[in-house]
Amino acid sequence: MQVTHVVIFYSQLNQAAEEYAEWAQAMEALVESQPGFVRAHSFRNAEGFGVTLSYWDDLSSIRQWGRHSEHAKAQAYGRETAYLNFRIEWAQILGSSDSERA
Amino acid sequence: MQVTHVVIFYSQLNQAAEEYAEWAQAMEALVESQPGFVRAHSFRNAEGFGVTLSYWDDLSSIRQWGRHSEHAKAQAYGRETAYLNFRIEWAQILGSSDSERA
Repeated sequence: MQVTHVVIFYSQLNQAAEEYAEWAQAMEALVESQPGFVRAHSFRNAEGFGVTLSYWDDLSSIRQWGRHSEHAKAQAYGRETAYLNFRIEWAQILGSSDSERA
Repeated sequence: MQVTHVVIFYSQLNQAAEEYAEWAQAMEALVESQPGFVRAHSFRNAEGFGVTLSYWDDLSSIRQWGRHSEHAKAQAYGRETAYLNFRIEWAQILGSSDSERA
């Protein structure tokens, strides 16, 4: 299987959300065990605006993760408490180029 | 026209590259005037690992920007001086979901 899809998750963190680090850590650990998950990269700037890019083998794996029961609890926490707003995009990778291979 | 494509550019900055901020600023200003460009978001962590996501109306606009003469100079500077390594991916957006619309 090859990596074919990326999920781009932007969020504006409510910096008063004290339990966020624990939730984020738990979800990072859980997503790594999901079928079809390949890797993820997260960034957040000083203003609390961040992005997580996660890579998946296929769309059905993304959908399955979207419905995972523990993930659903985290989503509710994110919506209700941790994030002031967020945006999710999913996309199919068409090509890539890497300085290592150049 | 609707936003249909995203370019994901990861880079590991050579933190000794003193002119990087000026180059980055010049390219940010230039890309905004390109046909088909919609918006971009950039993040870089304390270790110098960063990502820029740029959104475009279509693939041909992305290709045109890739061949822009001033951009080509910046690419050479990036390859030779500013970046220890980098990776570019381009993808077609399949869908999105936004907390603002929820």
